Amino acid sequence: MLTRPCPGFKAAGIAAGIKKNGLKDLGLILCDAPAPVAGLFTRNQVQAAPVRLDRERIGGGLCRAVIVNSGNANCCTGEDGYRHAVRMARAAASTLKVPEEQVLVASTGVIGEPLPVERIEQALPELARRLSPEGLSEFAEAIMTTDRVPKVVSRQGRLAGQPFTLTGAVKGAGMIRPDVATMLCFLMTDVQAESGVLQAMLKTAADRSFNRISVDGDTSTNDTILLLAGGASGAAVDQAAAQAAFQPVLDAVMLELAKWVVKDAEGANKLVEIIVRGARSEADALRVADTVANSPLVKTALFGEDANWGRILAAAGRAGVPFDPGGVDLFIGPVQIVSKGLGCGRAAEAQAARVLRSAEFAIGLELHAGPAQASVFTCDFSIDYVKINADYRS
Amino acid sequence: MLTRPCPGFKAAGIAAGIKKNGLKDLGLILCDAPAPVAGLFTRNQVQAAPVRLDRERIGGGLCRAVIVNSGNANCCTGEDGYRHAVRMARAAASTLKVPEEQVLVASTGVIGEPLPVERIEQALPELARRLSPEGLSEFAEAIMTTDRVPKVVSRQGRLAGQPFTLTGAVKGAGMIRPDVATMLCFLMTDVQAESGVLQAMLKTAADRSFNRISVDGDTSTNDTILLLAGGASGAAVDQAAAQAAFQPVLDAVMLELAKWVVKDAEGANKLVEIIVRGARSEADALRVADTVANSPLVKTALFGEDANWGRILAAAGRAGVPFDPGGVDLFIGPVQIVSKGLGCGRAAEAQAARVLRSAEFAIGLELHAGPAQASVFTCDFSIDYVKINADYRS
Repeated sequence: MLTRPCPGFKAAGIAAGIKKNGLKDLGLILCDAPAPVAGLFTRNQVQAAPVRLDRERIGGGLCRAVIVNSGNANCCTGEDGYRHAVRMARAAASTLKVPEEQVLVASTGVIGEPLPVERIEQALPELARRLSPEGLSEFAEAIMTTDRVPKVVSRQGRLAGQPFTLTGAVKGAGMIRPDVATMLCFLMTDVQAESGVLQAMLKTAADRSFNRISVDGDTSTNDTILLLAGGASGAAVDQAAAQAAFQPVLDAVMLELAKWVVKDAEGANKLVEIIVRGARSEADALRVADTVANSPLVKTALFGEDANWGRILAAAGRAGVPFDPGGVDLFIGPVQIVSKGLGCGRAAEAQAARVLRSAEFAIGLELHAGPAQASVFTCDFSIDYVKINADYRS
Repeated sequence: MLTRPCPGFKAAGIAAGIKKNGLKDLGLILCDAPAPVAGLFTRNQVQAAPVRLDRERIGGGLCRAVIVNSGNANCCTGEDGYRHAVRMARAAASTLKVPEEQVLVASTGVIGEPLPVERIEQALPELARRLSPEGLSEFAEAIMTTDRVPKVVSRQGRLAGQPFTLTGAVKGAGMIRPDVATMLCFLMTDVQAESGVLQAMLKTAADRSFNRISVDGDTSTNDTILLLAGGASGAAVDQAAAQAAFQPVLDAVMLELAKWVVKDAEGANKLVEIIVRGARSEADALRVADTVANSPLVKTALFGEDANWGRILAAAGRAGVPFDPGGVDLFIGPVQIVSKGLGCGRAAEAQAARVLRSAEFAIGLELHAGPAQASVFTCDFSIDYVKINADYRS
């Protein structure tokens, strides 16, 4: 795991007693100076208290610290929940001696149970003492719910010759499970940038990464992505040329984190890229790819390692995008199994079955309807997914 | 099982050797006279050959016979597949001595394999010999794929004092599996009606029945509903009053068949009605109910018999319909478990868990946003669903 610290940031994570199993459940990020910040939040009508608070505070444009707990989503908890989110931020602000309105919060875990905010308040002094430039891996551990591994990615780039760093941590069950679900992503960089510029670039990168992964189509009440630009490198993202140099690094880090979420999806065994080519528009291509990527039938066939191309064509056909089914080609990895809408026979299926046994591969669907393409990352749908989701609270 | 024959119709079903397991796989319906006919077909872009043929022929407005096979969907089979569908209809027409263009066809089973049309041609004389007014139950058996039981429903009604009969047979795995999937429904009645009138009433009834069930959101390439009005009763569905008397019977038969499809869904253990009340419009209510009914997380919680109300609210919240999450109430059967967006506590959850252990119940979500309501029938999402769909072709 890459854990290159981002200059200007410290992080830490500890067990505060929110999770019943005694694992780490409270994480903290501190920036040396107020950092311009951008954020993206869940579009679910049901929004957790921390999301409501962050939406208000992010308008200020600056963030000094982020306090995150796992084990409790602080969602569907009413006005008490909102007050608990405020108290959680206030405790961090007073411990760190930073302005309260520059503290953002995030929570993930069970919905509908009161947040044990006293445990967070009690744990904060110790958590603050542990803050260190190398602390991001324990922070990443502290925000996990049913994630199998902590997920941190770091890259470096150059702006007008000056090096900069971008480091991100993500948690996500991938197969979203509202109780323990939620995709939380925290990105730190040492470039200098205004929050408006950051916001536009974050949105662009999300559309190329987290908005291109699909696990089960459920959207959490707590999804949060934050990007903080501390500025320690002195490299400025201001002009168009600098933005053009920064965006690919942001895209790459977020895509890597997003793919990691899919790979780590509960019960998942395979990371599969669904690539749709030859669509009339990118929107059309994305819609077809999304429908295939979300089809329970395609996903169970992936689990079964079955070259069941009829399911893929049938899913594509219900995406609401016009194309000629008699003209499509389909590839599993490099193996063509459908040519002009017709199966290529048993030998091709046997070859495709070998590709399906691998852990990562692509499925390519060529519509021959236009010049556009798009892709989505998905995973298989396993017996473990059902077991975990059926048994979770029992 | 109700198998009241509909006067004026005969049916039969036999094993023609299309299914590998030797079970019945070829069914036939014959009307004594050319019957005005209405039809609804899949909206999938990928349309099986029999659907393409029926769409052309139904414009003629009259149907004398329907020939249906299971074990092979005759889909993604190209122009050969279309010619096979024509041959299948022609064989029935010549055996029965009825006009070829008044024969409709349907197929269900594996996608992408050539239809063994010779076996259908060879079996037709024997199939025609077996035709009988009591033959609908063996017809219903012959159209099954992974259905656990043959499904036939019959009701009687009165039009201006004159009794009439409506009888229908359906097959549907419920959890749609493109290989063996497809919802096929054949309705016979002895009223007199024009095909245009039948079409409008069929559409209305479908919107109240088959369009209100949800299993996994996948749409088959072969879905077909046909309604034949033989006219033997002499009761006429012509004036508005007669339509008003016939529609509820049609609605009731189709809703019963639709619920049966959900109950018989592969791996399903529970039939659950998701009722959304207090929406601004029926479309809003339906959208929320549909999203809840299709959520893998809600469906796995139903399988686990877990009163996991957070998942239901989270699914409702992502339906794209505005409502105040702080104002909603939620009921599982008669038990209220959420009041004004907050959980009603452990005792209520324990009571709800008892309801969840039953085979049929309703989940009621009150949005308090308006006067409209809608409901959708769904089932649980089980380990067996994944097993069956992962292993189907292996």
